[in-house]
Amino acid sequence: MKGNVLVGQSGGPTAVINSSLAGVFKTAMDRGFNKVYGMRYGIQGFLDEQYVDMSKYVKNELDLELLKRTPSAFLGTCRYKLPAIHEDKEVYEKIFHLLDKMDIEVLIYIGGNDSMDTIQKLSDYAILTGAKQRFIGCPKTIDNDLALTDHTPGYGSAAKYIGTSTKEVIRDCLGFSYKKKNVTVIEVMGRNAGWLTGATALSKAEDCDGPDLIYLPEIPFDIEKFTKKVETLLKKKDIVVAAVSEGIKNKEGKYICEFSAGSSTKDAFGHIQMTGTAAYLANYIHEKLGCKTRSVEFSTLQRSASHLASRIDINEAFMVGGAAIKAADEGLSGMMVVIDRLSDDPYQSTTGVYDVHRIANGEKVVPREWINKDGDYVTDEFVSYLKPLIQGDYTPMMVDGLPRHLTMNTKGYKDLYKVFNE
Amino acid sequence: MKGNVLVGQSGGPTAVINSSLAGVFKTAMDRGFNKVYGMRYGIQGFLDEQYVDMSKYVKNELDLELLKRTPSAFLGTCRYKLPAIHEDKEVYEKIFHLLDKMDIEVLIYIGGNDSMDTIQKLSDYAILTGAKQRFIGCPKTIDNDLALTDHTPGYGSAAKYIGTSTKEVIRDCLGFSYKKKNVTVIEVMGRNAGWLTGATALSKAEDCDGPDLIYLPEIPFDIEKFTKKVETLLKKKDIVVAAVSEGIKNKEGKYICEFSAGSSTKDAFGHIQMTGTAAYLANYIHEKLGCKTRSVEFSTLQRSASHLASRIDINEAFMVGGAAIKAADEGLSGMMVVIDRLSDDPYQSTTGVYDVHRIANGEKVVPREWINKDGDYVTDEFVSYLKPLIQGDYTPMMVDGLPRHLTMNTKGYKDLYKVFNE
Repeated sequence: MKGNVLVGQSGGPTAVINSSLAGVFKTAMDRGFNKVYGMRYGIQGFLDEQYVDMSKYVKNELDLELLKRTPSAFLGTCRYKLPAIHEDKEVYEKIFHLLDKMDIEVLIYIGGNDSMDTIQKLSDYAILTGAKQRFIGCPKTIDNDLALTDHTPGYGSAAKYIGTSTKEVIRDCLGFSYKKKNVTVIEVMGRNAGWLTGATALSKAEDCDGPDLIYLPEIPFDIEKFTKKVETLLKKKDIVVAAVSEGIKNKEGKYICEFSAGSSTKDAFGHIQMTGTAAYLANYIHEKLGCKTRSVEFSTLQRSASHLASRIDINEAFMVGGAAIKAADEGLSGMMVVIDRLSDDPYQSTTGVYDVHRIANGEKVVPREWINKDGDYVTDEFVSYLKPLIQGDYTPMMVDGLPRHLTMNTKGYKDLYKVFNE
Repeated sequence: MKGNVLVGQSGGPTAVINSSLAGVFKTAMDRGFNKVYGMRYGIQGFLDEQYVDMSKYVKNELDLELLKRTPSAFLGTCRYKLPAIHEDKEVYEKIFHLLDKMDIEVLIYIGGNDSMDTIQKLSDYAILTGAKQRFIGCPKTIDNDLALTDHTPGYGSAAKYIGTSTKEVIRDCLGFSYKKKNVTVIEVMGRNAGWLTGATALSKAEDCDGPDLIYLPEIPFDIEKFTKKVETLLKKKDIVVAAVSEGIKNKEGKYICEFSAGSSTKDAFGHIQMTGTAAYLANYIHEKLGCKTRSVEFSTLQRSASHLASRIDINEAFMVGGAAIKAADEGLSGMMVVIDRLSDDPYQSTTGVYDVHRIANGEKVVPREWINKDGDYVTDEFVSYLKPLIQGDYTPMMVDGLPRHLTMNTKGYKDLYKVFNE
């Protein structure tokens, strides 16, 4: 008889993180595990013995499909860094005591770089102490900055939202372009890696010119050169649209958003909370060039827009969840599941596993050769790499005009069942 | 033999303004008008003799369907106020000279309050001078602030986007709520009318609590009372979400956004360009209460998100375009088409017409009785009124992973035809 599975979610949410959770649950059930428990708010909540029995919420196929379509962490998430093992053994003793008590055989943690740090420490501790539990990481991040995987679940859907919204913003700008030049600066998430900002290039197609300039955090940002570029472009065209990463820095290494008002809070991993880069640049251009400017921040909308999720992404997120259970079931531990791209056309992918020590705390940035020489656009190779990941839709279940999500409300769903009869 | 039709778009864009354009074009063709010309950039572009023959771009049913799904003004728009007739007769002489030259029999102007001012002046001038052209206004505005019509095309789709995005933002906040209270302030468009901000209440359903507080511009905003409310709520729950209109003012009549940095530009109608209300309030709460805060601006995304348009809205926008042509064809002039609601369940509507003098330059705000006593939420009546308008989807035509739009690019659409074979 197999034991139980414990699954947690950690770090920033994505539109498809719950599809991985669904994959973990479904595969664990299919493979004969006893129960699947979900940590509430990741390892932080678990340390307070906060967990739930997933079967209470996923009772049938409709619930499972709803879960796949629900954005943000269904179980709740955290940004909580485990101490180094030699610094605080008590935390580990507590965790392993709980795992034993709950008869946990497998722990799956769905997250990004920081979450893989958690998997690494837990599996190291298990090896050191001879604990029997197995630990597998399941990749998740809109940032696409995990090493060794072709891409991360969550990236494709965020990119689809960013591409679509960029296209709609550009159309909006075009409408107002008569005898009134305007410059729009779009701010996209991505602290150190420009994968998301590069996704604005998806908007370039037969029916849209795409943004004029794209600035990734990989390249030092030169505000004078930027202003000059905008000025030159305004001589040729009426609207200029620039996409910038929230994390662009000048050549002295100072974030552009730090020049803006109010952005000094840091999270538990020491990351600065960023915002205001586009607003700062829009004001700067307005003052220097005198034209009308506007800033648009995609903000948290880009990481939770499950209404525009990519089918490839939802399916792959589900697949890596299942692969994590399979790997653990086959005896592996201290590994992260990765996605391997088999072919581009038709797009095909499969899963693999890598030692989590090779992944944790690293950051995969956009290769220099996928950014143009001037450092203000992505290349065709970048777009070709990204395009397969945004294909297909995973139609939301619409109830009363809005997409429906799964929640821990166990009172039942009257309105939902009116629409989707079981 | 009938003459030609001239159609223009004016004011802020919507997700469905081009569906009205499609309705004008299709109905004019069906009713035997000769040609449909489109003003480029409204009356401002037309004064420079900027216009196009619509048949060049809408050649078949596929183009027509694409046009209905294209956000922002296909023809381009303007914020241009015609002078009073006694102030500058030359402008009118020029316009009517062009109308004669182009054999225009009917002029349709798709827009909001300011655009109805244009229809009113042109039809007044025609009556004064005995000109034969007829002028009909076609309602359009996400703001829903036009008098005498049950609602305006564009409002339903913006509301659907706002409701969906609010729900996704709330889910995002919930994920991070463990041992870390957070307050999110969402900023929604709407200068003097709170119709759009009230739409955040749509997110309240079996699977979502909706925002905690909703502040419309109809009620003076008291920042101390707001802070107190947030403080009280934080004692009971971990996340607080407040939705505010960009146009909220304190009881002295000063816009909250004016307390924020950089918001002093005015447009041709003397309206202040607003932004920064939510950021200001988020900072204020952070300073006063010390909790983590975030601001989210839906910005121009909310008025151009055709990827989430409401089917009711797209269909009604098309219908009012057709009704404008029908009214003109039947000899009317100086009128605006309105939407009359026939029943709520099932929702049914039809069109009517009103003298544009009764509509132009007025603003319909949210009735006091549809706002709660404390002035910080909308009532059930408000939601019941709005709900029918967001129903149904009008699936975007997806090409290569993104929604496709119609453009004036006449090189043809290779990628599109690969997907949608004619």
